Amino acid sequence: MSETWYTQISEVKPNEIRLRGYRIDELMGKVTFSEGIYLALKGELPSPEITRLLDAIFVSSIDHGVTPPSALATRTATSTGAPINAAVAAGILSINDFHGGAIYNCMGVIEEGLQRVKKQDEPVEKVGIEIVQEYLAGKKRMAGFGHRLHTADPRTARLFDLAEDTGIAGIGVALLKALQAGFRQAGKDLPINVDGAIAGILVDLEIPRDLANAFFIIPRVPGLVAQFYEERTTQRPMRYIDPTSSQYNGHENRDLQERSGE
Amino acid sequence: MSETWYTQISEVKPNEIRLRGYRIDELMGKVTFSEGIYLALKGELPSPEITRLLDAIFVSSIDHGVTPPSALATRTATSTGAPINAAVAAGILSINDFHGGAIYNCMGVIEEGLQRVKKQDEPVEKVGIEIVQEYLAGKKRMAGFGHRLHTADPRTARLFDLAEDTGIAGIGVALLKALQAGFRQAGKDLPINVDGAIAGILVDLEIPRDLANAFFIIPRVPGLVAQFYEERTTQRPMRYIDPTSSQYNGHENRDLQERSGE
Amino acid sequence: MSETWYTQISEVKPNEIRLRGYRIDELMGKVTFSEGIYLALKGELPSPEITRLLDAIFVSSIDHGVTPPSALATRTATSTGAPINAAVAAGILSINDFHGGAIYNCMGVIEEGLQRVKKQDEPVEKVGIEIVQEYLAGKKRMAGFGHRLHTADPRTARLFDLAEDTGIAGIGVALLKALQAGFRQAGKDLPINVDGAIAGILVDLEIPRDLANAFFIIPRVPGLVAQFYEERTTQRPMRYIDPTSSQYNGHENRDLQERSGE
Amino acid sequence: MSETWYTQISEVKPNEIRLRGYRIDELMGKVTFSEGIYLALKGELPSPEITRLLDAIFVSSIDHGVTPPSALATRTATSTGAPINAAVAAGILSINDFHGGAIYNCMGVIEEGLQRVKKQDEPVEKVGIEIVQEYLAGKKRMAGFGHRLHTADPRTARLFDLAEDTGIAGIGVALLKALQAGFRQAGKDLPINVDGAIAGILVDLEIPRDLANAFFIIPRVPGLVAQFYEERTTQRPMRYIDPTSSQYNGHENRDLQERSGE
Repeated sequence: MSETWYTQISEVKPNEIRLRGYRIDELMGKVTFSEGIYLALKGELPSPEITRLLDAIFVSSIDHGVTPPSALATRTATSTGAPINAAVAAGILSINDFHGGAIYNCMGVIEEGLQRVKKQDEPVEKVGIEIVQEYLAGKKRMAGFGHRLHTADPRTARLFDLAEDTGIAGIGVALLKALQAGFRQAGKDLPINVDGAIAGILVDLEIPRDLANAFFIIPRVPGLVAQFYEERTTQRPMRYIDPTSSQYNGHENRDLQERSGE
Repeated sequence: MSETWYTQISEVKPNEIRLRGYRIDELMGKVTFSEGIYLALKGELPSPEITRLLDAIFVSSIDHGVTPPSALATRTATSTGAPINAAVAAGILSINDFHGGAIYNCMGVIEEGLQRVKKQDEPVEKVGIEIVQEYLAGKKRMAGFGHRLHTADPRTARLFDLAEDTGIAGIGVALLKALQAGFRQAGKDLPINVDGAIAGILVDLEIPRDLANAFFIIPRVPGLVAQFYEERTTQRPMRYIDPTSSQYNGHENRDLQERSGE
Repeated sequence: MSETWYTQISEVKPNEIRLRGYRIDELMGKVTFSEGIYLALKGELPSPEITRLLDAIFVSSIDHGVTPPSALATRTATSTGAPINAAVAAGILSINDFHGGAIYNCMGVIEEGLQRVKKQDEPVEKVGIEIVQEYLAGKKRMAGFGHRLHTADPRTARLFDLAEDTGIAGIGVALLKALQAGFRQAGKDLPINVDGAIAGILVDLEIPRDLANAFFIIPRVPGLVAQFYEERTTQRPMRYIDPTSSQYNGHENRDLQERSGE
Repeated sequence: MSETWYTQISEVKPNEIRLRGYRIDELMGKVTFSEGIYLALKGELPSPEITRLLDAIFVSSIDHGVTPPSALATRTATSTGAPINAAVAAGILSINDFHGGAIYNCMGVIEEGLQRVKKQDEPVEKVGIEIVQEYLAGKKRMAGFGHRLHTADPRTARLFDLAEDTGIAGIGVALLKALQAGFRQAGKDLPINVDGAIAGILVDLEIPRDLANAFFIIPRVPGLVAQFYEERTTQRPMRYIDPTSSQYNGHENRDLQERSGE
């Protein structure tokens, strides 16, 4: 007979389902999806500040058009008649070191930097410069920096603002900015990309690094669903999908003020 | 040269990303994850009532313990050393007709029923009874009814309450309840499961049926992430995973009131 | 405690592994991979004729260049840094109704046709014409016919020759050819594609239809591995992969005679 | 317009398909599946000796019963109604460091060892002992050694015999055996598992390490297909799959002599 093994996520009994101790039907209607996600992952409900930042992280990564490899893999599978779950899975399998997966690697850089700060009892600014110089000497690419399209990623700036506003920005974000300053001092104006910004914030939220890429995968899944649906309903099967020949013809520019004015 | 093709989801230019016309950095911090998801999928931001119901749908399906096949597939892959995206993908590939996929099939039953209501100009109650009798005569199982564990799924009751409260419950939910009444009249007290309840609400929200299972996949992804993390951090690799020998040893029962009293 | 459940595929004891009753270490070195595959799937070793045809089916479907969606999905995932298993899985998830999956659907057409032949006691030729006329009347596309590139698929002709040579071609292949004749009579010169040819042969080999697409997936996996390896070793990560701008620069044309002349 | 990119695997023109320069319809019926696989991966057809060894490697890894995680993931997905490609993909995603993936890691150990042999100009025996001592000192587990069930894996012995018979066993196999001798000298009688044996042979076949795990994935796919089919046709959906309560009730023990006596 099999040995008993334990779980701390959910307790499921006939007609009673509890997530981390709370009845799921009590949570429904009272907590938002982001609060529920945090509860599932961390075991406790988040503060309003954390919730606000989480929502911003998730909203930042829902979609990035048709050219990211995850969107293209989902569309390629869809184009062959794949059901929704297979199409989304193909997309998720295209989230790795060079796309989405930089969160994990960048958290590694930050966490190692913070250990140096502590061990060497030096300011983050100094450690940031040191690490950058080692990377440059080794001709290594640093995860979380640079983007094939954006020179100043608007998501990064907004995430840092919100992290400051909510008081969550701490030593993780500080070290990330010290790395950027290190690059600038070396004459390289490398932007922090959205993966990097999320990495810095996750360090300050004390999210374990094993969960890093989940903060890209979770929000990108609905984006992949949108890509699946558009491919399935507007394109013919088995077309050749050239990422460079796509064009946007959706809703014209608008802003949220207009909405509240409705 | 490839022909131009079109997308209406996102417009991405250097340093400017727009989702359905809105700047992503304006959305961040102002809309919740659920609102962002609805915007991505439907092209417009939801009303507060829809948002409340969406959050409830998503929270209802985040996790259901270690025994659903999707959780077990994720744990099985994790147990071999899979990275997080592969572990989650294995879980998503286990969401099909018999697990999670009933939303699509149940929407089919409801939509067909509503066409009859219209075509035959008959009340939903009558059509509900008719359809059930056809299923019973054909010995067919109706998607959205029955559960291997719950006789009265607490998520279903809560979803129906919220659908009423928000004024969203309409003819979709009505037809679903007519089907349940049809079963009762035939002497079968079959519960509507959470997939069925979501199906009824999605019909009333005018969500296209091709998106049906997304409303299970999107919320279950964070649950699969939680299963991945627990397996990876608390179990040894390559163990034999017997679903029937697991036990909950997490946080004791608690309710949200306690939280607000903090 | 869990109920005992049964398997007939392999028996595994400490230091003894048996596949369908044979010791695996006895099979090794004595049977070929194709014979082993047939043994695993059907429970018995194949005749030399079946083995020859199986090898031809498998060789026919190993690769078809970089433009099939499965190759592109594998390359897209690879381009993000995916490990080999994830890259191959993304490719397999792009094998569906419109690519590779036609074997299953074409077997359905053939099996239904054969039931008519039996039930109506009519010759295959007549039934073939009947079915085609129904498809044309319903404006339905018939699985197994037509190709986006080939007007006379060289793999189909070769498979039919080998099926004749080995004496395996029977009523399945006959019905398939009757369907083609039906199209010709209706003025449509539609080629049988490789999926169709495999479908006809699988019917004659009495392979269950649930296994149909395995006869494309099994051989295409090594092709996807080749695509993974070439992408990983010759291309930079995160490139835009336009299927229409690829060119072959591999080994020049050669034939097997040259080889034996070595 | 997209830049031209190059491939050396297949050339596909209307009605002409060439794999590594050979017409696919000429290969069909003349080369076996294993020869075709080698051609696709390495660019040349294998010698008869290599073919024999390849067939043995592939046959060795087709199936290992219902308890390997890949089989369980495939069965779990199947149990929810997954189509064959999704069920197989879920299985492949469960092939990682602790299951099947040891080939890659063990090739790493061997290749590093061979570099030392060359650099230090020392015999493999000495280097084998050195490496083992470093692993033991660092309390590291060495990939390719040990098995949760077999103390003397019958597949390993047979592979080594065939590698000797065919004259392919070289410095890769020698170093692997030197490692085993190193463990023995340290008082540990660790068996080389089938992943390890394959790793040693792949080094001698000059297969690039990036392809390592393909030599487990390619043959295991048909095994996963067999698991899919058995689960789908003999078990009810959504059952609890306890790996430890399965039992073999298939064909009784037999050997190949009986077959030739038919």
